[in-house]
Parts: sequence; C-alpha cells; structure tokens
Amino acid sequence: MSPEPNSNPFSNRHKQLYKNMQSASLEALVINPGPTMVYLTDLHFHLSERPAVVLFMPGALPAVIFPELEMIKIKTLPYPVRAFPYGEDPRTWGDVFRQAAQEIGIERSRVGVEPRALRVLELRLLEASAPQADFVSAEESLAFLRMRKDPGEVACMQKAVDIAQQALQATIEFIQPGKREREIATELTLQILKAGSDASIPFAPIVASGPNSANPHATPTDRILTPGDMLVVDWGASHEGYISDLTRCFAIGKVDPEFMQIAEIVRQANAAGRSAARPGIPAGEVDTITRSIITQAGYGDYFTHRTGHGIGMESHEEPYIYKENTLSLSSGMAFTIEPGIYLPGRGGVRIEDDVVITENGAHSLSDLPRELVFIE
Amino acid sequence: MSPEPNSNPFSNRHKQLYKNMQSASLEALVINPGPTMVYLTDLHFHLSERPAVVLFMPGALPAVIFPELEMIKIKTLPYPVRAFPYGEDPRTWGDVFRQAAQEIGIERSRVGVEPRALRVLELRLLEASAPQADFVSAEESLAFLRMRKDPGEVACMQKAVDIAQQALQATIEFIQPGKREREIATELTLQILKAGSDASIPFAPIVASGPNSANPHATPTDRILTPGDMLVVDWGASHEGYISDLTRCFAIGKVDPEFMQIAEIVRQANAAGRSAARPGIPAGEVDTITRSIITQAGYGDYFTHRTGHGIGMESHEEPYIYKENTLSLSSGMAFTIEPGIYLPGRGGVRIEDDVVITENGAHSLSDLPRELVFIE
Repeated sequence: MSPEPNSNPFSNRHKQLYKNMQSASLEALVINPGPTMVYLTDLHFHLSERPAVVLFMPGALPAVIFPELEMIKIKTLPYPVRAFPYGEDPRTWGDVFRQAAQEIGIERSRVGVEPRALRVLELRLLEASAPQADFVSAEESLAFLRMRKDPGEVACMQKAVDIAQQALQATIEFIQPGKREREIATELTLQILKAGSDASIPFAPIVASGPNSANPHATPTDRILTPGDMLVVDWGASHEGYISDLTRCFAIGKVDPEFMQIAEIVRQANAAGRSAARPGIPAGEVDTITRSIITQAGYGDYFTHRTGHGIGMESHEEPYIYKENTLSLSSGMAFTIEPGIYLPGRGGVRIEDDVVITENGAHSLSDLPRELVFIE
Repeated sequence: MSPEPNSNPFSNRHKQLYKNMQSASLEALVINPGPTMVYLTDLHFHLSERPAVVLFMPGALPAVIFPELEMIKIKTLPYPVRAFPYGEDPRTWGDVFRQAAQEIGIERSRVGVEPRALRVLELRLLEASAPQADFVSAEESLAFLRMRKDPGEVACMQKAVDIAQQALQATIEFIQPGKREREIATELTLQILKAGSDASIPFAPIVASGPNSANPHATPTDRILTPGDMLVVDWGASHEGYISDLTRCFAIGKVDPEFMQIAEIVRQANAAGRSAARPGIPAGEVDTITRSIITQAGYGDYFTHRTGHGIGMESHEEPYIYKENTLSLSSGMAFTIEPGIYLPGRGGVRIEDDVVITENGAHSLSDLPRELVFIE
C-alpha cells in the first residue's frame, strides 16, 4: 500500500498536524486512545490495560499498534495504515512495539506525546522500543489543531447544548424538597439520554445542595433537599462525540437573602465574560473582566477557580480561561464562562455557559435563563 | 498533625500497601485519580488537565498535591494528610510538586507508579521535582492489594450484577426488528440507571447486530435490527464504585443454524470455565479449559481474545485470564468468564459472567439464562 492522501477523509487534519509538528520541531507523534485519536483517525479504542497507539511521521503511513482482537477496526478504516497487531500475552507486546518503531524509523527522533493522555504504560513500551528517541510534549501542536472548531464541529456542540437544556427542563419538576441529590442526578441523567445524547455522556452530573453547593466539584450524595438550600446543577450531554457543559442554580424554598445577592453578582459576571470574549483578546483578559465584577462586589476570595475551560470533544480542553493565559482568542475557539461564588459551609452559586468565538464577538450556544430558579 | 492509624478507616489498606511495597523494594508510591486512589484514600478527583496525586511513604503522612479549588475534599477527609494545594496557573505547579517531593523526601527514592493510570503529565512533574528518583512500575504491589475482594466488596459487586440483570430484563421487550443498535443502547442505559446503578455507569453498553456482532469491541451504530441477525449485548452497572460486566446474545427472527451451533458451543465453554475456576488453579488453566471446548468444536481460530479479565472497581483489572498467566487463583479474586466465537462479516456470540473464587470453587454472581434468546 502506498499513501493515497486523496482517499483519506482525515488528510486535511493530518496535513495541518504535520505543519504544526514542523513548527514545534517534532519528527514524529504518538497518540493513544481518546479524543485526539478520534479526531485524527476516527479510531475508537477503549483506554484499557491493552495499549493502542498511532504513530504519525510525515511522509509515511500512520502506524497503528493494537490488540489483534481489534483487527476489524483497522480493516474497515477508509484509508491505509501500517498495522502492528499483538496477542494477549503482555510479554510479547514489547517486540511488536520495537518492530513498529524500527519500521517507522523513530529510533532517534524527537517524538511528540500528549501529556494528558499518554500513560506510563505506553511511554515505557515506546522508550524501550526506541531508547535514543526523545519523548517530549506535543501539547501545543495538538491544542492548536483541535482548539478552533469548524462549522461541523460547532453544529455538533450546539446539538449537545440543546439536548442538555431540554434535559434540564424535563427534570425541573422533579427538583423538590425531600428529594435526594443522587435521585436528582439519576433523573437528570435519564433525561439527558432520553433527549438524545450519545450513550456515553461527558460526565456524571453534579447535583450539590446546601453546604455541598459550596464545593465546585461535588459528587452527588444522599443529602435530602431542604428549604433554605442553594442547589447547583452542573451537567452536559454529548452529540457525535462533541459535548456540552452547563451550570444553573436553584433556591429551595426561602433562602438567605445573601444567596440571592451572590446569584445576581454571578449572573452579571457571567454576562460580562460573555460580552468580553472576542477575537484578539487574551484569554486571561476574559478571566480578569469576569472576576472583577465579583471582586468589586467583595466576593473575590470566594471565586476560587478560573473563569472557564475549552470544550469540544472533551469537557476540559484548550483554551483555559485563567488570569495568566496570554493566548489570543480567535474565531472557532469554544469554551465555558463559569464564574461562581462559594461560601464555605453555607452554599454556592455558579452559572456556566458554552460560547464560541465568532468573527467579531462570542456566541453563547446555551440560552437557558440564568436567574436563580425558585422551587417552592 | 501526627499519624493516628486508629482514626484512619483506610489504615488496614495502607498497612497492607506498605507490606507489598517493601516486598517490591519500593520506598514510595505515587497514585493519581482513579480506582486505586479511591481504594486507598476515598479521594474522588476528576482525571483532568489539573494533576492530582497522593504520595505514600511508610512512616509519613500521605501527601496530597491537588488544585486548591478541591480543598474541601482534603479538609473533610477523616484522617490526616499533608496538603500541597496549587493555583490555576500551570507554570506554578512545578514548584508545588518540588516542595512536596522535598518535604516527603522522595528525592532519591525508588518510587512506584501505576503504569495504567499515571500519565506523562504527572510523571514529568514528578521527574522534575525529584530528578534522582527512579519511577518504576508498582503494578504487582497494587494488583495484589486490590485483587482479592473482601466480603463488603463482593456484596457491592453482587448488587452491581443484580442491577445489570434487572436492566436487561426490562430492555428485552424493546429489542425488536426495526430498532437501531443505538436506540437499544440508550434504552438499556436508561434501564441500568432506573434499576439503581451509580450515575457513572462502568462503560457504555455494546449493542452489536448482524456483521457488527463479529467485532468483540463494537460501538453501537445506526444499523437497524433485521431478521437473521445475531445480536450481542455487553453491558454493566455500578454500585458504590464496584461494577458488573455481562454479555448475552439474541437471535433476531430466523437465523443461520450455524449461529445456534456456535451459541451452544460458547455456552458449554462458559460453563467449563466457570467450573474450572477454583483456588490453586493457574489463571491460564481456566483459559485453556474454556478455549479447548471451542477448539475441539473446530472454532478455535474464531475465539480471538482471552477468556476473561478481573473486575472490581474497574471493568478491566487483575487477574487477566489468558493462556500464559501462571498466577494461582485464590479466594476473593473476581473476574469474567467470557468466551466468544466471531465469524467475520457474518456475526458472533459471546457469553460473559462475573465469578468470584470461593473456598473451594467459583461462584457466579450472574445467573441470567445463558441460552440464545429468540426474538420473533
């Protein structure tokens, strides 16, 4: 088989990849299962105890090292690759990795890896197969590849947002005093699937009530919703591998007036962030503008995290919206705006939208009302 | 704070860990988010772009390096740890890792890591913080720690099996010609949640029909169920972090008699594997006995994977049931028995149960009928 770039629907992405690799002086690249592998190859492998990697080297066919029981996935790819299957005995895997490394010729190369995805399992096999190669971070090359979404990708994300919004609306009547956080999380998950999400939802919903709502990364518990509680719901859906990630807040019965105040401050901060976002502005500036609303209101110490994170095929990806990030935003970049105020031991508020940078501003894919919802 | 082993509900696990580390000549151990971290610390972190690790060193308090927005999780731990929080700017993380490495004293240590869990992200931060330390696989020390389940763990797994079985039964009436694989996968997922699974199910169900059923790791597609199809359903549920993983098969309308034959062969192979499993037998022997039924029937080349894998907090963990594995099974070990026959381009069969080694044999947690189910 010889490379046939025209028959490969992924050839544009590969071309862009090779360009980015060249700028970063990377001679080769290795990818393991996950969104980047799907983006570049359409190969869906489980991330498991059996390593599966794709090696890219400009001018050569991509090489795939994989468990032989997955052969059908390789055979049905719509473009040619070099296949290096291995069997079930882990002691034989090293030889297959070595053979692939030699045939592809990475022995002395500067090889890019994805630090957030590649595990010690694959790294050690690669190092042993090419002891003189240098395995370095390809984070930037890959971030720039996936960070700017094309219209097809944005359409998938819009659909993922629509599904999530529909699911929350279908869940609201279930949110009542006496219900447990865990029950609400399950009902919301059911509604996300019923509304048409991909079967693998991007993350288990956060349903955090009362003092738990002061924990930005709470896990649903058996706590029962009680009048006076704040309730934070952080959830998302998935459409053809693209995801949404939203947060809205509820007041259960009569709540402390301070909660209504902080809900309004956070709503204003969210709005400020959404209108600040535009091409050319540094990501850090969006954080600063959003944060300043909360700081000026005297709650700066209680907004304990960055303003947002990129979204797309993952619920956290580039660009990250934190103060020190000098990255200049440009059209197609997609991320969350999610300011919050968390009063330890009492409760919190977060309002999260998914926005995409347009030619002259930012478009919010999500449009559910951002005001505190009162549940009687 | 001084270590107070008696106040720590995890102290028995830590004690066993330190014993295993000593046998493996490991002076320290580093764990990142996932089942082993939950097992050893009850800490639930997302695996994200923000690294979070726990460092263990016998005689010292466990040290946790984590994003400061997660502080509440550390503060509410029921036992003392040393906390090393960091902020949102990734450029500052290296300093926090270095400080932790120095205070804990791993600079020259042989440090165990989990190759399947630790990523290059954490490894590079650790290497930079302790350039003279040696980071080696702690796979065995950890596998032996988690491989033998205690009665509380087995009870959770039984519940996860019960939930999964109930969910499949509730889905059967939905499985009909004309339905799409994806629709069935969604319905099954709904039923898994309704039956009481944890909100994060262990894996998205495999629903593979017709030729797709010949792919052991198929992903549900828009293919419509058609008379003559074989249908393989591989699904699981989760209870308090412990999982189940089952497979059953269906014949849609009138199918090729060869499919009925291979379904019966696989059923016999599954039964042979379940009765072979007992304390003292090598894991590989269970594979050999199961496989021999299929080989003797002339389908050996079409059983393309090992007989099973361990289960517990993960859907794939130790012990792996493959021919070359000399590990001697012992009571409390839990794994799948899942022989299959896959006829490329036509269809396949797999029957998967979850078993636990007892004092004198193996107990199957799953008991749904294993015969082919005919859908008219």
